[in-house]
Amino acid sequence: MGPRLRGNDGLQKECNVTHIYNFSAGPAVLPKEVLTQAAAEMLDWHGSGMSVMEMSHRGPEFMSIYKAAERDLRELLAVPDNYKILFMQGGGLSQNALIPLNLLGHKPAGATIDFIHTGSWSGKSIKEAGKYANVNIAASSMTSVPPQSKWQLTPGAAYLHMCTNETIDGVEYDFDGGVPDAADPRLAGVPLVADMSSHILSREIDVAKYGVIFAGAQKNIGPAGVTIVIIRDDLLGHALPACPSAFDFKLVADNESMYNTPPTYGIYIAGLVFQWLKAQGGVAEMERRAKAKAELLYAALDVDDFYQNRVALPNRSRMNVPFYLKDESQNEAFLAGAKARGLLQLKGHKSVGGMRASIYNAMPIEGVQALVDYLNEFAGR
Amino acid sequence: MGPRLRGNDGLQKECNVTHIYNFSAGPAVLPKEVLTQAAAEMLDWHGSGMSVMEMSHRGPEFMSIYKAAERDLRELLAVPDNYKILFMQGGGLSQNALIPLNLLGHKPAGATIDFIHTGSWSGKSIKEAGKYANVNIAASSMTSVPPQSKWQLTPGAAYLHMCTNETIDGVEYDFDGGVPDAADPRLAGVPLVADMSSHILSREIDVAKYGVIFAGAQKNIGPAGVTIVIIRDDLLGHALPACPSAFDFKLVADNESMYNTPPTYGIYIAGLVFQWLKAQGGVAEMERRAKAKAELLYAALDVDDFYQNRVALPNRSRMNVPFYLKDESQNEAFLAGAKARGLLQLKGHKSVGGMRASIYNAMPIEGVQALVDYLNEFAGR
Repeated sequence: MGPRLRGNDGLQKECNVTHIYNFSAGPAVLPKEVLTQAAAEMLDWHGSGMSVMEMSHRGPEFMSIYKAAERDLRELLAVPDNYKILFMQGGGLSQNALIPLNLLGHKPAGATIDFIHTGSWSGKSIKEAGKYANVNIAASSMTSVPPQSKWQLTPGAAYLHMCTNETIDGVEYDFDGGVPDAADPRLAGVPLVADMSSHILSREIDVAKYGVIFAGAQKNIGPAGVTIVIIRDDLLGHALPACPSAFDFKLVADNESMYNTPPTYGIYIAGLVFQWLKAQGGVAEMERRAKAKAELLYAALDVDDFYQNRVALPNRSRMNVPFYLKDESQNEAFLAGAKARGLLQLKGHKSVGGMRASIYNAMPIEGVQALVDYLNEFAGR
Repeated sequence: MGPRLRGNDGLQKECNVTHIYNFSAGPAVLPKEVLTQAAAEMLDWHGSGMSVMEMSHRGPEFMSIYKAAERDLRELLAVPDNYKILFMQGGGLSQNALIPLNLLGHKPAGATIDFIHTGSWSGKSIKEAGKYANVNIAASSMTSVPPQSKWQLTPGAAYLHMCTNETIDGVEYDFDGGVPDAADPRLAGVPLVADMSSHILSREIDVAKYGVIFAGAQKNIGPAGVTIVIIRDDLLGHALPACPSAFDFKLVADNESMYNTPPTYGIYIAGLVFQWLKAQGGVAEMERRAKAKAELLYAALDVDDFYQNRVALPNRSRMNVPFYLKDESQNEAFLAGAKARGLLQLKGHKSVGGMRASIYNAMPIEGVQALVDYLNEFAGR
């Protein structure tokens, strides 16, 4: 049996599935090459006699893994020298609290955080931030990114938070105009904070526009349990007294993510993904592929009104594609037929219903084509 | 090449090492059987066509892994039904903040937490708790657990914190008298909180004595990045407003550790370790082995004063054995000789110096015997 070229027991009973394509929103598909290497190295990393899981995080073996991962991520995203990259725990969700806990220490009580509300994840961020500061929703839409001219920004806000790709709602910022320029006078002294969990490494970004970028790993980076924080140096050292030391960005930065024992195995897998990305051609190549995959899928959804995606065209996500059947009574039949063809985890998030196909970096275009073929077949085209 | 039966490249140049024994304090040695199974299942878990890393945490495949891990840990530690087991992120260190953030919400401002200070880890807990409450050091010693009669307890304390095995200092509580009885009148209404990171699952415990038990995984449980919290139901729901939602014990408990995406792969490995422990005979068998291994090692240290362990006899840890050479100018020679024999990571923690051998559940007695042989050889016996 070749790896990943077979269905599970249940599927094999139903029909002859030869390929599995996993459209999970996260944890999600990983490059086959990464998993193959991880399996081969599991009991003995590079002749050390140890699994990566067994290594002291302060020993030379793991430190070499850590430093390579940090260096490769810095190269892939062109992170400037005045930014630190932190490998943390807690997931993107925890950052909804950890960002205000780390950025408000030097602000007066009653400081305001501005938010652009474009879906479920920015919604969660808004709710959590309200525990630590005043919150202003500067603009709101669940199906588009409101134009910057409509944003009701707070002068002197502590920061401006945006979720640049909404995993549940499928709304993605258009970087060629959707994100404010660093020189925008309305944002003088107001750092941009971006939750890029579900599209980091899928497109080129100008890190210098942002004060903080964060991302849970379990979409385009690696296994759940690692969280990446990229932060400009001048924003470090402003933690509120209530911030747990293990999550104090400055302590984490000063200790090269080893103030606490880091999630070593997850960092190792992330490092393998970074190497894979470089070998594939880096972020520019991922962006090219993401465009091609997304265009293929949206074109099939747009043929007629059998399927519907409700997001404004310029903000349709290249990573998370929610769609609805016009006749929702066919939902279960659609999902059952998909599963029988090895197209897994297409059910939409419970909060919005319908379907969702997440097509991250590790999803090959063949998987998207297989989904498109099924979309057409199910629609009777 | 058989797995783990060889040295690394450097070692092989120096001499013919055939076995590696890894005495790291954590992340630490894992059972070979667990790593072998993880490698075999890496690309396709149980015919699902997916790696465990690629599974949605809410899907039936991962939920079966999660539930088995929870059930097995509950069985291994005989956790009563009125306790929840949480699989969290952040490590033991983060719990130094998360425990007060979760237990003080219904206490008046100025509440006091009592601590027994027996080493570096309880010391860190004391320092961190001081950010959230008054702290009283009820008793202190770095080389023993002070007798309960000497503890200066605070009536009505929010809780009493103890680190029942000090990983750095090698001080372990004697459970047959070292931990207060649940009926101790001085502790009426005062929950016991125990940091068991470095000896959980190595000895039988009476969970009902404790309000909260916590443990970072990377010693006896699995890979770094998973933290276990075992908490009595009546202590849930008392989080301070500043507690991040992702780390609110009640939210974590109410969502079966899936309020946030959990560290799925780490939980899977922990589950394999739990299965291994059950197959070996459970915690009672681990305790028998731990006693045998510790007796073997301490006997070699106690032959004469060439080596020294400074911990009071009843509190010598069975898991972490720090020791010093009487002539510390030989430290480097000792470590170099150990490495040449495949005895790795024996250097003591930088804060205390000397040597340390961590002999967790997954360390076979053959590894301890190899260390004892080397101790005798180096001492010229």
